[in-house]
Amino acid sequence: MAVATEPAVALRWDGRALSVLDQTQLPAREAWLTLAGAEDTAAAIRRLAVRGAPLIGMVAAYGLAMEVTRRPGLGALEDGAEVLAGARPTAVNLAWAVERVRAAALAAGPVSMAGAARAEAERIHAEEDAASAAIARHGADLLASARRVLTICNTGALAAGGAGTALAVILELHRRAPGEVRVLACETRPLLQGARLTAWELARAGVPHELVVDSAAAGLIRRGEADAVIAGTDRVAANGDVANKVGTYGLALAARAAGIPFVIAGPVSSIDAALPDGDGIEIEERGAEEVLGFGGVTVAPPGTAVRNPAFDVTPAGLVTALVTERGVAAPLTAASIAELLA
Amino acid sequence: MAVATEPAVALRWDGRALSVLDQTQLPAREAWLTLAGAEDTAAAIRRLAVRGAPLIGMVAAYGLAMEVTRRPGLGALEDGAEVLAGARPTAVNLAWAVERVRAAALAAGPVSMAGAARAEAERIHAEEDAASAAIARHGADLLASARRVLTICNTGALAAGGAGTALAVILELHRRAPGEVRVLACETRPLLQGARLTAWELARAGVPHELVVDSAAAGLIRRGEADAVIAGTDRVAANGDVANKVGTYGLALAARAAGIPFVIAGPVSSIDAALPDGDGIEIEERGAEEVLGFGGVTVAPPGTAVRNPAFDVTPAGLVTALVTERGVAAPLTAASIAELLA
Repeated sequence: MAVATEPAVALRWDGRALSVLDQTQLPAREAWLTLAGAEDTAAAIRRLAVRGAPLIGMVAAYGLAMEVTRRPGLGALEDGAEVLAGARPTAVNLAWAVERVRAAALAAGPVSMAGAARAEAERIHAEEDAASAAIARHGADLLASARRVLTICNTGALAAGGAGTALAVILELHRRAPGEVRVLACETRPLLQGARLTAWELARAGVPHELVVDSAAAGLIRRGEADAVIAGTDRVAANGDVANKVGTYGLALAARAAGIPFVIAGPVSSIDAALPDGDGIEIEERGAEEVLGFGGVTVAPPGTAVRNPAFDVTPAGLVTALVTERGVAAPLTAASIAELLA
Repeated sequence: MAVATEPAVALRWDGRALSVLDQTQLPAREAWLTLAGAEDTAAAIRRLAVRGAPLIGMVAAYGLAMEVTRRPGLGALEDGAEVLAGARPTAVNLAWAVERVRAAALAAGPVSMAGAARAEAERIHAEEDAASAAIARHGADLLASARRVLTICNTGALAAGGAGTALAVILELHRRAPGEVRVLACETRPLLQGARLTAWELARAGVPHELVVDSAAAGLIRRGEADAVIAGTDRVAANGDVANKVGTYGLALAARAAGIPFVIAGPVSSIDAALPDGDGIEIEERGAEEVLGFGGVTVAPPGTAVRNPAFDVTPAGLVTALVTERGVAAPLTAASIAELLA
């Protein structure tokens, strides 16, 4: 496969209009969607055209800014904030980013609301880009000797600011030791973000990688085929419990059994300090059709009942370290998280 | 979905000819293949038209018997035994059943070789049917209080004699407590035997069940949504290490972390007493195309490299009990296995 020279980009903002890459069509097609306000942005988030916890925060921020630009006023601001914050329940970055734009707009008052909202969304975007670069550095320092890294879902430029979170760490390891780093990428059922998006990003970046079904990860870890596991996060509770893509908890158990590091990477906007522990994290249950088949092909008998939790919770005690733009929390405890946020 | 009244059947033998259900076409179609000798039987096993460790042993036994019926003689016997035993590497039942038929044929001598081979294959078939019934009883006694049972792959009538192994235990629990037993069935990537075959068998049997992606199992177990995990096996080493469908090891870790039983069910023909431990079990690596696509649709970028181990090894220490037709080995140790085989 030809290696693209440009890094992957998930969104384009020209100061007024937002375009996002329709991730449901990758890797087959690079199709761009133009978004105009809160409703269509929320719809794009709901149907996973845009996904990845930090990225949906950034995109929702722009969605609200666009809404109050075309419909200035308190009604549009409040309605837009509500529809965007409610688009998906698990990632905390979404509500956090929407609230930042809402607060900035309110503080600016009716006349300059739109400009203030756009400026705040741009600030969030710039901060998340900078956070990605810092996460990459801190993570690569932490995992400096890791050469075979296993990951799940997609945590690259298609999921967050800059080069992403966990995948940004992997790309930085590759930059520091070209030709030495190999990735085991979990395909990440049901929506195959690993097979479709992470394999695509790693190919573009020229990082050697192998795709595995999710259930193969534990056995490969046991056989010594990974030096470390690194994943992103949708929400970190105050005690360090981590919600992330379904399957993350199983990887943490396998890493612990094999004695290899299990690392979570994400911006501090992923930390929900108001939530005591992971038991309080709402786990989104998605539609049965995602499990019954893929891409329009149904494999299970018609009418089969399904459980489809999109996320799971990994207890803090199984996490070797949380890597953020402000540094590393290790061990991951209420105290080390409080220190990051101080 | 309409509930069929007849139990699922994977093979039909009329004394001379063998038909097998082409499991690659389920659940969409019930297509039967007529097999005539060693080569086509081995091919059906290789491409997973017939699968499940005990079942491929039974079918291979008939394949060798048919081969020496149409081509009597030592050459056909030895060539047939070789191609059949080599069709897949991990399940020990395959080599065991082929060797039984070969030895019976050799002992009978050239004139009555064919009849002896057919009789031995029929004996194996009858023994595996009886083993299934006994496994179901022993397993249901052991897990008498389990109501929510999680399983992986397919271990029913499509995988073994009679009603199967692990799935036979579940069906027996359902028979004893109708309406109370619920199954969580892992879809079992890459070939989706759980989604295609187990869901189909459970629907036919009227057992309430829900399908989950494999990576969801650990989180659901952690949330208390399963009382027990039960799986089949392709090979049990002398020390109790268990090779089974990839993903089984991860379920064992999750069950241990949650404090629920993790049970393996299989006929004693699954025990390889000559193998000291699981490190010696050859793990079949299958083709990349199984992982690159889903239900015939390619999802990953073209040319993506793949690791595709079909099995993994669960250390004996994580297995609560091994259920066989001769009784239960618990804890699973070299001593308890030796006792079963005595």
